[in-house]
Amino acid sequence: MRALVMGAGGQLRLVTGLPRPVIGEGQALIRVTMAGICSTDLEIAKGYMGFDGVLGHEFVGVVEDAPGKPAMVGERVVGEINIPCRSCPMCKAGRGNHCPARSVLGIVGKDGAFADHLTLPVENLHQVPDNVSDQAAVFTEPLAAAFRILEQVDIQPGMRVAVLGVGRLGQLVVRVLVAAGVDVTSIGRSREKLGLLEGVSTTTALESEIAGKALYDVVVDSTGAPEGLARAMELVHPCGTIILKTTVASPAILDTNRLVIDEITLIGSRCGPFAKALRALAEGAVDPAPLVSAVMSLDQAEEAMRIAAMPGAIKVLLHV
Amino acid sequence: MRALVMGAGGQLRLVTGLPRPVIGEGQALIRVTMAGICSTDLEIAKGYMGFDGVLGHEFVGVVEDAPGKPAMVGERVVGEINIPCRSCPMCKAGRGNHCPARSVLGIVGKDGAFADHLTLPVENLHQVPDNVSDQAAVFTEPLAAAFRILEQVDIQPGMRVAVLGVGRLGQLVVRVLVAAGVDVTSIGRSREKLGLLEGVSTTTALESEIAGKALYDVVVDSTGAPEGLARAMELVHPCGTIILKTTVASPAILDTNRLVIDEITLIGSRCGPFAKALRALAEGAVDPAPLVSAVMSLDQAEEAMRIAAMPGAIKVLLHV
Repeated sequence: MRALVMGAGGQLRLVTGLPRPVIGEGQALIRVTMAGICSTDLEIAKGYMGFDGVLGHEFVGVVEDAPGKPAMVGERVVGEINIPCRSCPMCKAGRGNHCPARSVLGIVGKDGAFADHLTLPVENLHQVPDNVSDQAAVFTEPLAAAFRILEQVDIQPGMRVAVLGVGRLGQLVVRVLVAAGVDVTSIGRSREKLGLLEGVSTTTALESEIAGKALYDVVVDSTGAPEGLARAMELVHPCGTIILKTTVASPAILDTNRLVIDEITLIGSRCGPFAKALRALAEGAVDPAPLVSAVMSLDQAEEAMRIAAMPGAIKVLLHV
Repeated sequence: MRALVMGAGGQLRLVTGLPRPVIGEGQALIRVTMAGICSTDLEIAKGYMGFDGVLGHEFVGVVEDAPGKPAMVGERVVGEINIPCRSCPMCKAGRGNHCPARSVLGIVGKDGAFADHLTLPVENLHQVPDNVSDQAAVFTEPLAAAFRILEQVDIQPGMRVAVLGVGRLGQLVVRVLVAAGVDVTSIGRSREKLGLLEGVSTTTALESEIAGKALYDVVVDSTGAPEGLARAMELVHPCGTIILKTTVASPAILDTNRLVIDEITLIGSRCGPFAKALRALAEGAVDPAPLVSAVMSLDQAEEAMRIAAMPGAIKVLLHV
């Protein structure tokens, strides 16, 4: 099969003629039909996480083989990316996403989705409703990550909420919060990306236009940049909350005095509920269609990664 | 009167012959009987907060004059240090401690407690129960700051909790958590300071002896050092919470990847409930007596600040 492989030496290369992955116990073999390039993939390509193997973790595909669950064969599915051990205390506490022994599709110790085939435990798979296209379903994983915010913060009516950074993830975060009835200000550095929010009930603003400080009760940092946290710290109100979605290769500087004196809460936020994301797509509560910058063949995966890294790009999809 | 004054040029000096502070509307004049030196005072003496004026914010004293409330004259009192405007949205939301126009006793725009007299709004004052000595009552302010943690984090039975740093504030934090029934590990760098916890139901450990990582569900950083946060990040478990009590003149480096991937919550924590602190002292639930390193006269205030800054010192008190 074909796959975009991150070599141990750090070089990214489309490889052909690879064997299909072997189905482990409790796993299914999935033929990938579409995959999405995420900022994390771009960071991994720069060396973040020290990953080597097949890149990619956002996908939709069709179950080709599931020895333990033959009824699943032929189902169109998306898949949760964390593969927990299911026996440690963290797993038994229902927090398998934080299992210390977990592997993570295309990120930690597990070949990913920029390939003709992948394997995942059948427990990780969610059937895609018929009315959700592949081009929408491929957004399930990042959309679930956006829904995670609503599990972590109790956003009350009247709260002032800002999403800082309207790139790949920020665009979805805005849509999820607006769909939940939250009054959101979307702050970005590019008029083009802010323009993608036309039709979404959010106030938009260029970051350079925000002169005030301490304006928002909740600030989501989805900038994907190490300096995003410092800007979020300026924008958050005393006793407010910052949700940090940004993972980057370099650490950030934190004004701990501001955090303590103004009793700010900073919450790290990662993976979220697939079921809620699929429901939002099926009901049309979130429409990711405007976010597709390009659809390219897996054969063009190297070029697709370059395009995804360009400033204007939002979501570059690979059809497989 | 006498007062330890931080000059605009940054020099700290005991000044005599100063006029008594003028009683503003709604304020009382308090004759200070005892005051405590806090880490924040030592940081201010180094230039933190850019404060000039009379230093000091931990005190107990006697009301000498209270034009609007004459019945208070003669009462032994402690005082909350934040002086809010009482009219802005933050004040109306009951968060006067975060009023953007507030002054703070001995810290922001308001002469403090290392003096013969100070003034505070009568609303800030709490009468000290008869069975609480001056040497205990002077701990009310930092003890309230320790109680603040229990307002911010819901510590459940079975949770593993560590207090990192057992200096001035950490000693009180340990005692407050233990009194609340929490299973606390107290981690310090000095055997002497850990020894002060004898008789308190806590496990003690030298920081250098803690080899593992991700051991605690809740970590309180009361190190007072910029590197405390990084150590707390090592010690906290995935999905855990760090309470940050440390304010220092320099910012900290934060491993935001760890925060995001392990969905850690970081909460800034400052001032707390005086009523709870006074009750704990009156009931003997917390005994601060072992924490008194020295009691010196206000006349020796400059020397007392030097002693308080020494590595072995916990609380240096000034009798006035």
